[in-house]
Amino acid sequence: MAGTDKTQASAHAESGAPAVILVGPQLGENIGMVARAMLNCGLLDLRLVRPRDGWPNPAAEATASGALAVIEGAKVYDELADAVAGLNRVYATTARARDMVKPVLTPRAVASELRAAEAVGDATGFLFGPERSGLDNDDLTFADALVTVPLNPAFSSLNLAQAVLLLGYEWRMAGDATPDRALPTGDSRPATKEELINFLSRLEQALDDMGFFHPVEKRYIMVRNLRNVFQRAEATEQELRTLHGVVSALRGAKLGKGPQD
Amino acid sequence: MAGTDKTQASAHAESGAPAVILVGPQLGENIGMVARAMLNCGLLDLRLVRPRDGWPNPAAEATASGALAVIEGAKVYDELADAVAGLNRVYATTARARDMVKPVLTPRAVASELRAAEAVGDATGFLFGPERSGLDNDDLTFADALVTVPLNPAFSSLNLAQAVLLLGYEWRMAGDATPDRALPTGDSRPATKEELINFLSRLEQALDDMGFFHPVEKRYIMVRNLRNVFQRAEATEQELRTLHGVVSALRGAKLGKGPQD
Repeated sequence: MAGTDKTQASAHAESGAPAVILVGPQLGENIGMVARAMLNCGLLDLRLVRPRDGWPNPAAEATASGALAVIEGAKVYDELADAVAGLNRVYATTARARDMVKPVLTPRAVASELRAAEAVGDATGFLFGPERSGLDNDDLTFADALVTVPLNPAFSSLNLAQAVLLLGYEWRMAGDATPDRALPTGDSRPATKEELINFLSRLEQALDDMGFFHPVEKRYIMVRNLRNVFQRAEATEQELRTLHGVVSALRGAKLGKGPQD
Repeated sequence: MAGTDKTQASAHAESGAPAVILVGPQLGENIGMVARAMLNCGLLDLRLVRPRDGWPNPAAEATASGALAVIEGAKVYDELADAVAGLNRVYATTARARDMVKPVLTPRAVASELRAAEAVGDATGFLFGPERSGLDNDDLTFADALVTVPLNPAFSSLNLAQAVLLLGYEWRMAGDATPDRALPTGDSRPATKEELINFLSRLEQALDDMGFFHPVEKRYIMVRNLRNVFQRAEATEQELRTLHGVVSALRGAKLGKGPQD
């Protein structure tokens, strides 16, 4: 909430990101939670059309959990037409299919279209309706397309901030380069195959010494299975050293008790 | 919240769906909001490890917004080891990189792995930590992998229900067949190209009659542009009839004022 946090948060919010336009929002608490969800996703441009309880609203600041850059930058409009005036492409969120002929997209498809629009410099936005009723048909006429989150059809109602979060999340993911899977190894590094093979050889030798592989005709498959377990484990160089120590300790314990046991 | 709603909601929750395991949840209100987010995504199996305020908790029912099937089916455990005992694969949510060597996946990659696990009959689950502190390192040792939502790095903190929602949403999307884009046409149907061409011919004829196309060497490009606008509009048969009426009305108005005007 300090000035530096806000600066940092702003710096990470991306220019060209879609505006979030709340039409007739009722509770300040919900506006605050929307601001938080927006900043989670790197969205900063909040527009309020006829907020029921006026603006600014202390209840919104209380629930924004520090997303004050969004709250303080919010713009207020009397008319939806003015709120969307500078935008080139607008998507309206609605849970229900209406008796209107308008494309209905998934959030993921919208995210892809938004990124394409941004890439050519177009300004975009999402419309969200009042908590209780959602956008009415007149509001929907301002939108290029509708977006519906395909949730459990028997229980699909989201609160306002959750709807903003899912749309913002899909937008963010559409431009995100995080690897699907990473294995941070801290101060160590992934073991080389040579290091792994050395460990496995030593383990197999120790097990041979202890008479572990019997009957002998099963040795091949037992060795193969052990090798696969340790291959899957993706051990670091550090962890292999620990495993060497484990083998030594167990051999010591075993020897301490006697070689036959 | 009626019995029928619960039955319906349960019917739409999918068997094989991941369990949601909350370790040391603090506020009943948050457990209720988690239940709602779960049912939004079709998840029913809620497991609570040492809930701070005991269980059942009226505060949870109050915020579940009707997701009572989840609340009433919740199971309580003293130990995380018991809560995960029957599962084959477990993912732990954490916002921070820890000094542990464990794979870190995106929610989308996790969703893909979960669906693959379910396809072969494996039982899966998500771990979430206490609101304030998150999972501790001991908890994380029970997980196959970590999952981190790649949000705004300067403002990445989600509340518990939002984290459950994003994970559940990705799981749901990974098995969802909703078309990326649909155009519901209600009582009408998409116009045939013949109907569209007939309309365009009539419009162009009317504009020719009114001397709209001048200079004449620009007629070709003006016609092409008009045709493209109406192609993009994806009109239904009903809407084309309305547009025919618009042309007739405008011609009438124009003629009423005089052909030169």
